[in-house]
Amino acid sequence: MGLETQRRTFSGSSRWQLQTKEMNEQLLSSLKVDQNRLMEDIHYVPVGALTETGMCCLALPDADKQARDWFVEAIQALDCHTTIDAMGNIFAVRPCLRNDAPLTFTGSHLDTQPTGGRYDGILGVTAGVEMLKASSTGQSNLHPPETTTTQANPSSNEEGARFPISTLSSGIWASSIPLSTAHNLREVHPGTATLSSSFSCIGCLGSTPCSHDAVPMAAHFELHIEQGPLLEASHRQIGIVKGVRAYRWYMVEVAGRACHTGTMDFGNRADLLLAAAKMVLQSHRLAMAHAALASTGVPNLKPGSTNTVLESMRYSLDTRAPADSTVETLEAQIMADFEKIAAGEGAGSLNESVTKGWPCSIKITTDSVSPAVRFHPDCIKAVTEAAASALGLGSGELTQEMSTSMTLVPCRDGVSHNPTEYTSSENCALGTRYCLSVLGFDRMRAERRVIWSYQLVWVLE
Amino acid sequence: MGLETQRRTFSGSSRWQLQTKEMNEQLLSSLKVDQNRLMEDIHYVPVGALTETGMCCLALPDADKQARDWFVEAIQALDCHTTIDAMGNIFAVRPCLRNDAPLTFTGSHLDTQPTGGRYDGILGVTAGVEMLKASSTGQSNLHPPETTTTQANPSSNEEGARFPISTLSSGIWASSIPLSTAHNLREVHPGTATLSSSFSCIGCLGSTPCSHDAVPMAAHFELHIEQGPLLEASHRQIGIVKGVRAYRWYMVEVAGRACHTGTMDFGNRADLLLAAAKMVLQSHRLAMAHAALASTGVPNLKPGSTNTVLESMRYSLDTRAPADSTVETLEAQIMADFEKIAAGEGAGSLNESVTKGWPCSIKITTDSVSPAVRFHPDCIKAVTEAAASALGLGSGELTQEMSTSMTLVPCRDGVSHNPTEYTSSENCALGTRYCLSVLGFDRMRAERRVIWSYQLVWVLE
Repeated sequence: MGLETQRRTFSGSSRWQLQTKEMNEQLLSSLKVDQNRLMEDIHYVPVGALTETGMCCLALPDADKQARDWFVEAIQALDCHTTIDAMGNIFAVRPCLRNDAPLTFTGSHLDTQPTGGRYDGILGVTAGVEMLKASSTGQSNLHPPETTTTQANPSSNEEGARFPISTLSSGIWASSIPLSTAHNLREVHPGTATLSSSFSCIGCLGSTPCSHDAVPMAAHFELHIEQGPLLEASHRQIGIVKGVRAYRWYMVEVAGRACHTGTMDFGNRADLLLAAAKMVLQSHRLAMAHAALASTGVPNLKPGSTNTVLESMRYSLDTRAPADSTVETLEAQIMADFEKIAAGEGAGSLNESVTKGWPCSIKITTDSVSPAVRFHPDCIKAVTEAAASALGLGSGELTQEMSTSMTLVPCRDGVSHNPTEYTSSENCALGTRYCLSVLGFDRMRAERRVIWSYQLVWVLE
Repeated sequence: MGLETQRRTFSGSSRWQLQTKEMNEQLLSSLKVDQNRLMEDIHYVPVGALTETGMCCLALPDADKQARDWFVEAIQALDCHTTIDAMGNIFAVRPCLRNDAPLTFTGSHLDTQPTGGRYDGILGVTAGVEMLKASSTGQSNLHPPETTTTQANPSSNEEGARFPISTLSSGIWASSIPLSTAHNLREVHPGTATLSSSFSCIGCLGSTPCSHDAVPMAAHFELHIEQGPLLEASHRQIGIVKGVRAYRWYMVEVAGRACHTGTMDFGNRADLLLAAAKMVLQSHRLAMAHAALASTGVPNLKPGSTNTVLESMRYSLDTRAPADSTVETLEAQIMADFEKIAAGEGAGSLNESVTKGWPCSIKITTDSVSPAVRFHPDCIKAVTEAAASALGLGSGELTQEMSTSMTLVPCRDGVSHNPTEYTSSENCALGTRYCLSVLGFDRMRAERRVIWSYQLVWVLE
């Protein structure tokens, strides 16, 4: 396997030569992104078509296998070697690449939300494939990018939609999540599948360990749609990610008691839905007070009926804030207030004119803790030199182990995780062109070899 | 078919003889309810066993067919004729019955809630079967009850758990619901089945029209568990229903916009779950203000994920109050407030410290309107003479066309529509014994032939 070979020769690297800024710019301008070819790939990825525009490619059902097969076929048609690791990540490497240092990768994820769009993740993967195509067509009189290749997290639950930890396989690669934690994860929807049992269903695991030791990277560049409204609102076409908010995911289980809606008075009900409604509002209010976000999702309920008070409910809670300390404070307040609400107490004005019934039981489990991340200014600079403007938001599990960058293109109305998600073909192609900014990074790492051993801290946007 | 024959001879009735009160009491005391046999039936009904105590026998899946088969087998073993009508109601009639007047029936429903108990409905059906068994064992030196037989609504969606109108087949029998409305009803859970398509699946329809003309009844007596806490709290073993609350059922559809939980700020969300939480609380508050009940159930959601703001939700709302006018006032206020909440307006203190985002859309459909019903004092009296105490709550769709009565036995903690639902064997047998109070009704209708042509209005409890 190409990458394993490179790993063995890594320690002896010494053949770096300085590329001038001018050389880079000349090379960059000679490489042409083929917009039509790119859009064909984006709309071809033949998986989970939900509607004319939507996608459903949850981690690890059959649609995900088809997406992986598409990626492998596309990169093998470009004569790339394929490495698949123990989390199903796929790395494509051209045989001609220099092998005296860790490679620079670009790529993204192929799994989607249950009712996702066609760009989230897919744009980044197809941009990587397009970059390889552009640099292998002979349009350039110069050599193709020597240290750059592509990668995809197709089976990795990067979205966190099916299993309750997002950026899962990159987190394992970066040693921030133990492999055993991942394999034992239970799906958030009704059902009993674990990541491990799902892996075995579609047979997508490789023999290479999922780790930065086995597959080292000098840097990782990801093109993504913004998934928020800021770029569009400021009439900008490109955003550069400077940091990632802290976030924590919880699973909240509330249980009351089923009874007849027509014959059981409010005072004798253990009304879980009334409690859950207060919790939705209270978590929103607490988040507001801290300039944070709190979002309730995936409510799983036992079957209900019109004339039965609901019995139990299990739902996810997603909290986010710029600083770790804010998320911690929010957690403490949410935990305390949810306990009170379940008992029929407190919760400020929410209990006004509401009958205090029997208490509900509550259990809150923390599914995922993701600290805030900041890029080092030098990393931002590497991308900024190739890109025109700098406004971004995003995520970056990989940053703990290497330089990484995320380049954003705007999406219509900021809407993502939705079949109506839309980014114009022009913006997709423009983003892909900036994705070639990895070439600029080549020069910087030649000039300043130590950049990826920094204590990388993202500048929070 | 026995009942159809009786209908043809009904108009010529003249053979009524006065039964004295003493004769009735003597007959009643001679009939013995076999408690063990009754409990065997209750726990044998071989359908939808959910847990050790629970049941799931929704209208019209296979479990419901099994329940019907059990009933038909039980009554045919007692040499009864079976009539099945166009809504799947089953009527059992002994060949020896007098056929010069409409018969008196006892019975209940066999369908349950999705997570129901073993007594709701089942007790009333098995009590009817036990009554026939008791009166055919020769224990009595007197003749067996001559005008009394049994009936079951096994396939009838009486519970309203699967299709959103309760007491459906009795409502059609009583001409208060058109047959076409029933057949076109769509199930409340995810799925596309209609009552009509479900009927055809299990082939349970008979050729007799579902109407009081085709199957006339002089009266209907139903034994039921209370489903509320009042009997137990007042240490009473028997309750007699005096009336039924008015109730209305709605289907509320709220739609927002799916987006990313981490990158979309509160102000740019159309957050349906936040709106729905306010609606749950507001409907509770409005109901409180009117001494009424409002209960949210059956929330159906599109698949969610932890990091996607939910897109749309469809849920049922059940409102109840003693007077029709209260339910009407409540409806007007709920409709107005829900519209405001969807738009992000009003709703009193619920909007305090809550971000006003984009509006959600809302659509409210009325599924079912059930007016308040009161028994005529004479009907209460007929049952009261046989029963010891009079405290009840219940339902009575049948009352618009005939005399009807519901006798209640207490259930533990008032809990019903729940697998933990429990009524002691002694109370089941006691209730069944009072169910034989139909014999008292025989005397009364012999004395006062016009009782069932009254404009029957229940006395509201």
